[in-house]
Amino acid sequence: MSQLEHRIWMDRALAQARLALRAGDVPVGAVVVHGGVVIAEAANQREVDQDPTAHAELLVLRRAAAVLGSWRLEGCALYVTLEPCTMCAGALVLARLPLLVYGAADPKAGAAGSLFNIVQDLRLNHRVEVVSGVLADDCGRLLTRFFQARRGGPRQDREQGGGPRQNKGQGGGPRQNKGQGEAPAKTGGRSPRRDPGEAPQWPSRVPDPTPVPFPPAVESHSPA
Amino acid sequence: MSQLEHRIWMDRALAQARLALRAGDVPVGAVVVHGGVVIAEAANQREVDQDPTAHAELLVLRRAAAVLGSWRLEGCALYVTLEPCTMCAGALVLARLPLLVYGAADPKAGAAGSLFNIVQDLRLNHRVEVVSGVLADDCGRLLTRFFQARRGGPRQDREQGGGPRQNKGQGGGPRQNKGQGEAPAKTGGRSPRRDPGEAPQWPSRVPDPTPVPFPPAVESHSPA
Repeated sequence: MSQLEHRIWMDRALAQARLALRAGDVPVGAVVVHGGVVIAEAANQREVDQDPTAHAELLVLRRAAAVLGSWRLEGCALYVTLEPCTMCAGALVLARLPLLVYGAADPKAGAAGSLFNIVQDLRLNHRVEVVSGVLADDCGRLLTRFFQARRGGPRQDREQGGGPRQNKGQGGGPRQNKGQGEAPAKTGGRSPRRDPGEAPQWPSRVPDPTPVPFPPAVESHSPA
Repeated sequence: MSQLEHRIWMDRALAQARLALRAGDVPVGAVVVHGGVVIAEAANQREVDQDPTAHAELLVLRRAAAVLGSWRLEGCALYVTLEPCTMCAGALVLARLPLLVYGAADPKAGAAGSLFNIVQDLRLNHRVEVVSGVLADDCGRLLTRFFQARRGGPRQDREQGGGPRQNKGQGGGPRQNKGQGEAPAKTGGRSPRRDPGEAPQWPSRVPDPTPVPFPPAVESHSPA
């Protein structure tokens, strides 16, 4: 798929993230594309549903499986505005997802290259191809706005969206990784992730003021 | 909680695993205990529901959260017959689960000490206390019987239960781990997990003929 296509589908995921924002949930959205069309969409609904598993990725996987009538999401691509956590990354492997495209990286909890690389661990029985940084600015900005608006407000836990890292106009473009090995954790991922419910740490959970570029593209999806 | 209590609740999880077996799913069951009573039960339903996320642990977490009206499972213990995978281990962390008790270890996909130790990773914002090996023989035997019955049958993917390891009468008792560090992967966990849908490997997915003892108990839940 071309970068233009990636942006089109990520824009659909962003629309879901905005729905989450309006509902008072951390703004993360996801869509599943199959055969050139969106077959499932979901917004993060943890707070609305009071369900610890209601991340956008997990919801959209379940909806896509229901549409296809199969737990194997063959031929599907999942677009999500924030790098998946360990739960969601594990679910992508279980669903045999061929392609994951995400927007903002999450150095504090991301499991698709930041803190872990579960989606490409050689010891598991499936590897997911990953494209990252697509519309990362837009994805991260939505999260930043959410956390800034809530800063100093009533106690609220902001998981799924706690630590986005924006790719602020570095021109590095999306990072593509077709490698099969376990990616080393980024430096930013080493800091312990704090539970805001126990000790509010909002300033540490919004994107760094210093722009952090994505590594240059390693390999391209579309033939040269 | 005492070992007797652990066995009582694990027996309830085993009842759920048997329900999964009858429905044609990999026999894994789970219960959530809160205030001395079971507040939620679930069996693995991946095949029945054709839902890649319908592992017993994820279903029981969602049901328990619905009962409590909160995504935070404070004061809860989750009992499951097989060591959780990466998806389920990540979900336990997200739900702030205080205690996980599991039966059979899964050296090929377990994320509570075997292949990963996501539930006790210091970089994440919550650590789960783990007790393993409770009724491990019974839990593993159910899985073994399931895979043996299916061996040579029609192609079927047997995730959530692919590689149980039985604790065959070694007298080692359950292993308890209150440590906070990342546990090293067991030797058995290094072998790549094969996708049976792509290359049937049943003999490698049933428990080793050689009994593998659990390490002796490190620390006890109940005061001496």
